[in-house]
Amino acid sequence: MTDATTPETKTPWGGRFEHAPGEFQRRFGASLPVDSRLYAEDIAGSIAHARMLAQQGIISADDGEAIESGLIGILGDIEAGRFTFETADEDVHMAVEAELTRRIGEAGKRLHTARSRNDQVATDTRLHAKRRALEAIEDVDHLRRTLIRLAEAHADTVMPGYTHLQKAQPVLFAHHMLAYFWMLTRDAARLRAAYAAADALPLGSAALAGTTFPIDRTAVARELDFAAVIPNSLDAVSDRDFLVDITYACALGMVHLSRLAEEPIIWSSDEFGFVTLADDWSTGSSIMPQKKNPDFAELVRGKTGRAVGDLVSLLVTLKGLPLAYNKDMQEDKEPAFDAIDTFEDCLTAMAGMLSTMWVEAQRMRQGSLGGFMAATDLADHLAGRGVPFREAHEIVGKLVLACEREGRTLQQLTAAELAEASPAFGPDAPQWVDIDSVVARRDTPGGTAPGRVAEQLMLAREAFAADEAWLESRCD
Amino acid sequence: MTDATTPETKTPWGGRFEHAPGEFQRRFGASLPVDSRLYAEDIAGSIAHARMLAQQGIISADDGEAIESGLIGILGDIEAGRFTFETADEDVHMAVEAELTRRIGEAGKRLHTARSRNDQVATDTRLHAKRRALEAIEDVDHLRRTLIRLAEAHADTVMPGYTHLQKAQPVLFAHHMLAYFWMLTRDAARLRAAYAAADALPLGSAALAGTTFPIDRTAVARELDFAAVIPNSLDAVSDRDFLVDITYACALGMVHLSRLAEEPIIWSSDEFGFVTLADDWSTGSSIMPQKKNPDFAELVRGKTGRAVGDLVSLLVTLKGLPLAYNKDMQEDKEPAFDAIDTFEDCLTAMAGMLSTMWVEAQRMRQGSLGGFMAATDLADHLAGRGVPFREAHEIVGKLVLACEREGRTLQQLTAAELAEASPAFGPDAPQWVDIDSVVARRDTPGGTAPGRVAEQLMLAREAFAADEAWLESRCD
Amino acid sequence: MTDATTPETKTPWGGRFEHAPGEFQRRFGASLPVDSRLYAEDIAGSIAHARMLAQQGIISADDGEAIESGLIGILGDIEAGRFTFETADEDVHMAVEAELTRRIGEAGKRLHTARSRNDQVATDTRLHAKRRALEAIEDVDHLRRTLIRLAEAHADTVMPGYTHLQKAQPVLFAHHMLAYFWMLTRDAARLRAAYAAADALPLGSAALAGTTFPIDRTAVARELDFAAVIPNSLDAVSDRDFLVDITYACALGMVHLSRLAEEPIIWSSDEFGFVTLADDWSTGSSIMPQKKNPDFAELVRGKTGRAVGDLVSLLVTLKGLPLAYNKDMQEDKEPAFDAIDTFEDCLTAMAGMLSTMWVEAQRMRQGSLGGFMAATDLADHLAGRGVPFREAHEIVGKLVLACEREGRTLQQLTAAELAEASPAFGPDAPQWVDIDSVVARRDTPGGTAPGRVAEQLMLAREAFAADEAWLESRCD
Amino acid sequence: MTDATTPETKTPWGGRFEHAPGEFQRRFGASLPVDSRLYAEDIAGSIAHARMLAQQGIISADDGEAIESGLIGILGDIEAGRFTFETADEDVHMAVEAELTRRIGEAGKRLHTARSRNDQVATDTRLHAKRRALEAIEDVDHLRRTLIRLAEAHADTVMPGYTHLQKAQPVLFAHHMLAYFWMLTRDAARLRAAYAAADALPLGSAALAGTTFPIDRTAVARELDFAAVIPNSLDAVSDRDFLVDITYACALGMVHLSRLAEEPIIWSSDEFGFVTLADDWSTGSSIMPQKKNPDFAELVRGKTGRAVGDLVSLLVTLKGLPLAYNKDMQEDKEPAFDAIDTFEDCLTAMAGMLSTMWVEAQRMRQGSLGGFMAATDLADHLAGRGVPFREAHEIVGKLVLACEREGRTLQQLTAAELAEASPAFGPDAPQWVDIDSVVARRDTPGGTAPGRVAEQLMLAREAFAADEAWLESRCD
Repeated sequence: MTDATTPETKTPWGGRFEHAPGEFQRRFGASLPVDSRLYAEDIAGSIAHARMLAQQGIISADDGEAIESGLIGILGDIEAGRFTFETADEDVHMAVEAELTRRIGEAGKRLHTARSRNDQVATDTRLHAKRRALEAIEDVDHLRRTLIRLAEAHADTVMPGYTHLQKAQPVLFAHHMLAYFWMLTRDAARLRAAYAAADALPLGSAALAGTTFPIDRTAVARELDFAAVIPNSLDAVSDRDFLVDITYACALGMVHLSRLAEEPIIWSSDEFGFVTLADDWSTGSSIMPQKKNPDFAELVRGKTGRAVGDLVSLLVTLKGLPLAYNKDMQEDKEPAFDAIDTFEDCLTAMAGMLSTMWVEAQRMRQGSLGGFMAATDLADHLAGRGVPFREAHEIVGKLVLACEREGRTLQQLTAAELAEASPAFGPDAPQWVDIDSVVARRDTPGGTAPGRVAEQLMLAREAFAADEAWLESRCD
Repeated sequence: MTDATTPETKTPWGGRFEHAPGEFQRRFGASLPVDSRLYAEDIAGSIAHARMLAQQGIISADDGEAIESGLIGILGDIEAGRFTFETADEDVHMAVEAELTRRIGEAGKRLHTARSRNDQVATDTRLHAKRRALEAIEDVDHLRRTLIRLAEAHADTVMPGYTHLQKAQPVLFAHHMLAYFWMLTRDAARLRAAYAAADALPLGSAALAGTTFPIDRTAVARELDFAAVIPNSLDAVSDRDFLVDITYACALGMVHLSRLAEEPIIWSSDEFGFVTLADDWSTGSSIMPQKKNPDFAELVRGKTGRAVGDLVSLLVTLKGLPLAYNKDMQEDKEPAFDAIDTFEDCLTAMAGMLSTMWVEAQRMRQGSLGGFMAATDLADHLAGRGVPFREAHEIVGKLVLACEREGRTLQQLTAAELAEASPAFGPDAPQWVDIDSVVARRDTPGGTAPGRVAEQLMLAREAFAADEAWLESRCD
Repeated sequence: MTDATTPETKTPWGGRFEHAPGEFQRRFGASLPVDSRLYAEDIAGSIAHARMLAQQGIISADDGEAIESGLIGILGDIEAGRFTFETADEDVHMAVEAELTRRIGEAGKRLHTARSRNDQVATDTRLHAKRRALEAIEDVDHLRRTLIRLAEAHADTVMPGYTHLQKAQPVLFAHHMLAYFWMLTRDAARLRAAYAAADALPLGSAALAGTTFPIDRTAVARELDFAAVIPNSLDAVSDRDFLVDITYACALGMVHLSRLAEEPIIWSSDEFGFVTLADDWSTGSSIMPQKKNPDFAELVRGKTGRAVGDLVSLLVTLKGLPLAYNKDMQEDKEPAFDAIDTFEDCLTAMAGMLSTMWVEAQRMRQGSLGGFMAATDLADHLAGRGVPFREAHEIVGKLVLACEREGRTLQQLTAAELAEASPAFGPDAPQWVDIDSVVARRDTPGGTAPGRVAEQLMLAREAFAADEAWLESRCD
Repeated sequence: MTDATTPETKTPWGGRFEHAPGEFQRRFGASLPVDSRLYAEDIAGSIAHARMLAQQGIISADDGEAIESGLIGILGDIEAGRFTFETADEDVHMAVEAELTRRIGEAGKRLHTARSRNDQVATDTRLHAKRRALEAIEDVDHLRRTLIRLAEAHADTVMPGYTHLQKAQPVLFAHHMLAYFWMLTRDAARLRAAYAAADALPLGSAALAGTTFPIDRTAVARELDFAAVIPNSLDAVSDRDFLVDITYACALGMVHLSRLAEEPIIWSSDEFGFVTLADDWSTGSSIMPQKKNPDFAELVRGKTGRAVGDLVSLLVTLKGLPLAYNKDMQEDKEPAFDAIDTFEDCLTAMAGMLSTMWVEAQRMRQGSLGGFMAATDLADHLAGRGVPFREAHEIVGKLVLACEREGRTLQQLTAAELAEASPAFGPDAPQWVDIDSVVARRDTPGGTAPGRVAEQLMLAREAFAADEAWLESRCD
């Protein structure tokens, strides 16, 4: 930090300051390590801004062209790895502008006319958030497709359905997989809402109050493909809702993935044995030669903490900030980006793991015979014959207790034994406990009977197609 | 817990159990203190279920009628305070059903045919969430209306606009208030999304797999005014996204209110003196006779912690739960209800406080003269005369530094002094620092010029009217 | 709110105010529903304060005695249910003082000399936190004792040890239980730290700056059994660290309990079958007669969310508050009390559930034969005979793969087969895979060999005794 | 990933696996980007382990020496930048071991005898946590020293004390600074507790159950300077409490810093004007030439979100994990390290900013005259003359209201006017409102009277010296 350095190379706020920050301050205050990810959006925003300035006569056409071609050159150099950001730069905006001025001279210094970093960073971040939301939706859809395929492939596989991790009633594996499809369908909707929240232009709000130049915000919005112009300049520079929305979508999405991840962890245990994970989606132990661990599922489950932590981080940071921009808001991007990165990776991991895992259909079916899972049907059978449901429940509960003590299953009870327990049991009562019939009997919309699951699968494909159509319309 | 007590009066799961839970277990496991708030929804859901059962011939018409009139009687008694829940009841569902059976006998025991508490509680909670979402939107709108009125009443009030709590550029008080209007507009949208997330019927999913009875879910959905039927029974009983969504909407809404609350706290300080809070929206001190504290604003800010905590609570609770229902989910209602209660109260408090606070317009205008807030305009003036903005910024920065040392304002600089600082200053330069002109000059969409704020106010009224129309359509 | 009402009956800050708060404001601002739990501490603090005031001659001896006996009367009446707080009271402090004045007249109005509600509420809350910390430690110790007893009762029970929920190496059930003993030992230490953090007297700091009266803070500290006097009045009225500390101790304690709860949930599944929960620590289903659910373990796991949410709530509330007292801090008690209540209840639930659960030792032993859990020992055997461990690991890994394909266990391999896999295997290799020998072989400090677990049990008893001694010293 | 690649270069768990993970899985599962920070601890731990193995005769003396010198060489090369980790390495442990084997051959493969990565990573992380805790304490102490110096330099500076950001009573600036000293003193204590929590050796627990080799854990603990040996192997590999403890200490510490940061943000506003920040601890605006922003204070306040988010992240990750090690735990280091990094940087920033800021003592004193801050003293004066405090409060409150309406200060009231308000006012009443006397009058322990603050400063220096002594004893 010698005096020889002219102030403007050190900071963008020159004249009023007699001393520039030291090394620690530069590092501590720098957002470049995070916001350098925004370079493409920053350049796109600057090009749109420069075009508008020229069109409105605020800068000359020549300056406008020089700026645009200069920026295109920088973009190309960054993407080709020929230009890298220096740690001395405070943020991506100043880094790009400084490089532009080095390349095209005076004109570069005119680019910042009629804007402030406050509206510039808001614009860059919204462009980035929109792009990342679409990418995340693609990853969600990749996993949704995987679930649909699993459901298609296992239309007949019967497995124990659980509540409280206790065997409850048999269900189709396809039904189980589709439950997660619908969770993810809601995640996609939440990401679309976050996309819409980001889809309005802050540029033109300048520092906080608008600008004195005769700018055309609508033209810039059109150029950058924003659906609207933010109607209040104070709100434009201080609103980070769209980042919280996308982080929330990722955090709840991660909670869903943590639930989905829990299943193969439990299922691949020696005791359950319902699935065998592919070798390349498992890991071993450095000490125990026999181990084959569901590491990827565990990592997904563990990373849920990150995403929830990211959401908390953002909410805490924003709490209590008066209008308009406050520097605290620089802490907005890292948690949001981390949540999106995490969610996208975990979606990919789950899709890879689920699509390669071997479903041990025979173990599942065998497991469906235990746990007295036909007990509800026996009670329903009684209720259908006029016994109030609460009494039917009591009668069957006692039968279960007796069977358990004698080590028998419900399937082993004879019609005579049933009749002894309650005269209301019909002669066909034993047929009510056959596992396939138990599944087939849940033949109402949303139920697990094969026909109903096929019906549901069609609904799932329709929902998926509609979402894909939206996505394509946005990604053109 | 004597043997004399028949099991079914103790628990709803009788036959299989030889021992019933003790006193501690009852209290610890009871959800009644929380879910008793669902009584109206529970009864509405049961009536719709019973009607459908009768219509489908699953129970007799007589039983259906007995159930319905019994339930209507119980509802009336609860609302009249003639029936209260006992702590011995495990939850609101069993409490209502047990009372029904006491009143109408056998038929009462048939109400639970073809359903489980799993789908019943999901249905009750969704009905409740929908109602509460609408109520919260009404409260949001009440505060939005207050902000519109404040903006209308202070169309000409100039105040200092801040970034980093440093004076930045003058803005209209109306503009400042409307920034919060738009924040709340987004909150209303988030609540509508949560409403939509809740708006699908789980009933008919029974415990987890659907039911064996020939039910008509579409009829029940119509009766209870649900927009759709949930297409997967496992998802239906284990999805709590709608509660997380509404809690998130409240948590982010509270973060917004914490920002809004921060303003009168700062403004009513002796140093700022921008507003005087009404006596009945202030409190004093038990020891310091002079104190008049912005307690309500502070409470709102402080309660932000509750709502964020509630959101975390829900996300943590749901993490890692495999399908389908797990008892952990009983912990879903308290944080969600607390977040909604908190948000609604805080909206009311802010509306009350803001609508009665006295705006010290004179102090605000006076404050607008300090802080060199016209500096940007001077730089823009230079930029408009061909000086690259970065250089203009540097020149004016030095002027500010000189003024600060001499204890002068920018308004006190003469044209000659300006010309000395830079020959590019025009003879009209001194006019650029007049505060009203500074405000008027920000005359682009979203800017703080009076005409633009009037324009914005119209947009605000339109947005408000559209939201009100939606709300009315839902509340019929 | 008519003028007829004299101000002081309405608010404690009278003279400066012309209007009193309305009904909503009273309810919204009231802390009574929460801080009424502090009544005993409030009265104890007031008695100590009054005694000191009299001793120092600040009030007369008569007034001092009147105050003391008046307060003792109120305390008795509250505990006998003869006096209840009215919702019109803002907080417990004003409620008690107002009642005192009703009973003893003028003297009652002198009680508040030389103190403020700011230091008063801090004192009450610290007294309460100290008491609750000790109670929570007692509950922790109750569960620790349960774990010791389980370890004693199952000194020989072999079960599969898991990492990644995959069978890893056999361990003693006693060893497994003691792992949780040590977690809880740390929880007790954290609660003791929170106790120490609360153990300093704020009273005498008045509103924020100390008092003008010649008080004796040391005497009050001695009277109320505080270890020290807080040395800075601003810190005294605004420090809530002790509440955050205790909430943190509960939140991490709940995370530990969530881990402990996960075990019986998994173990009581049909597939594992390692434990059978007592009927009175299980619940059933309203629809499925066979169900017996580990509800209490699930509730404990689910309530972890509450405690983590409570901690977040406190941290968010305190963020960014300048000195000294701010009303936000009124939101400190509810999350802290909720976290303690939750932790205490969950400790009780876990102790009840674990002490009554039936350990299926036979199933555990049987489970220990599967999963190739002796593989590490085979590798160690090779390493002991000079094969580098990494190579030994590779050799045994291939043996496992071969066994798995052929459906054999390691125990079924003959010495000849082993020698074929690697000439380094000794003739005694087959003895290395016997499960009891595998357990016995881990004979280093902290290992699972029976002698080592016995050694550990002694350490546990010692640690427990030391903690109990501390607790008794505090509870006298 | 061709078959030509020998397994051990691909994964450390070779034999049992037929396929190795793909590129995505490697990246997703890799902990190297985070745990490479542990290289020094990993090598130190391995050296201690190897020495013990040789001493116990588990490996040969030659192998032991080869390992030790090999590891020392690697350490030197890493620190000299001659050896860098490759992204293909899964974690730092395997990277170091693989390099060791490349360098010394066979012997390198013997290093992992009698240990597992589970106990190895736990050991490394504890060593690292201990070191970082001490560093953080040093940074805390740096800021504490800054606060002591500020207090020493401003022993006579009177400023307004605030509650609710309303002027309450005048205090010494030294008193205000010392309040933060005590907060930080508690932070140091919390870090010491986290240090103690980390200070026990897990090594020797192997994967989960202990090892079959005759190791000497006590010797390793001595060598690595651990205070104890963890008595339960399951707990040793799955306990992460020490990381949560240190993260909690940082999170609450950050909440404290957010409070401290709020002060200069408010104080440097144009309206308060209590401090002027140094140029090199301020930043400007890219558009507004006059701006000088307290960016560093705002960043500190904003980064509070990170640390709270980190704490939540850890708690969520650990929730519900059964024993023993689960892969989720790999997510333990990043939040903990981030919280420590953040806290350390923010402590440095606050120390730099506070030690260079200019205290505008004159503005502070002037501010102390407003806001009727002597009102309490007037009431105390009356109380001292026999008026019950509640009545005195009422009388003075009315005086304040009258003054406010007439635009007068309490200092402007004459003895006659006071006597008119209440005959109880003594002739010396006007002397009670002098600001210096108001400060001086708070002459009780912990009060703001100059003598008391001097007394407090001595206590602070003593506490500081004791903490420094502890720190030195640990850093030897």
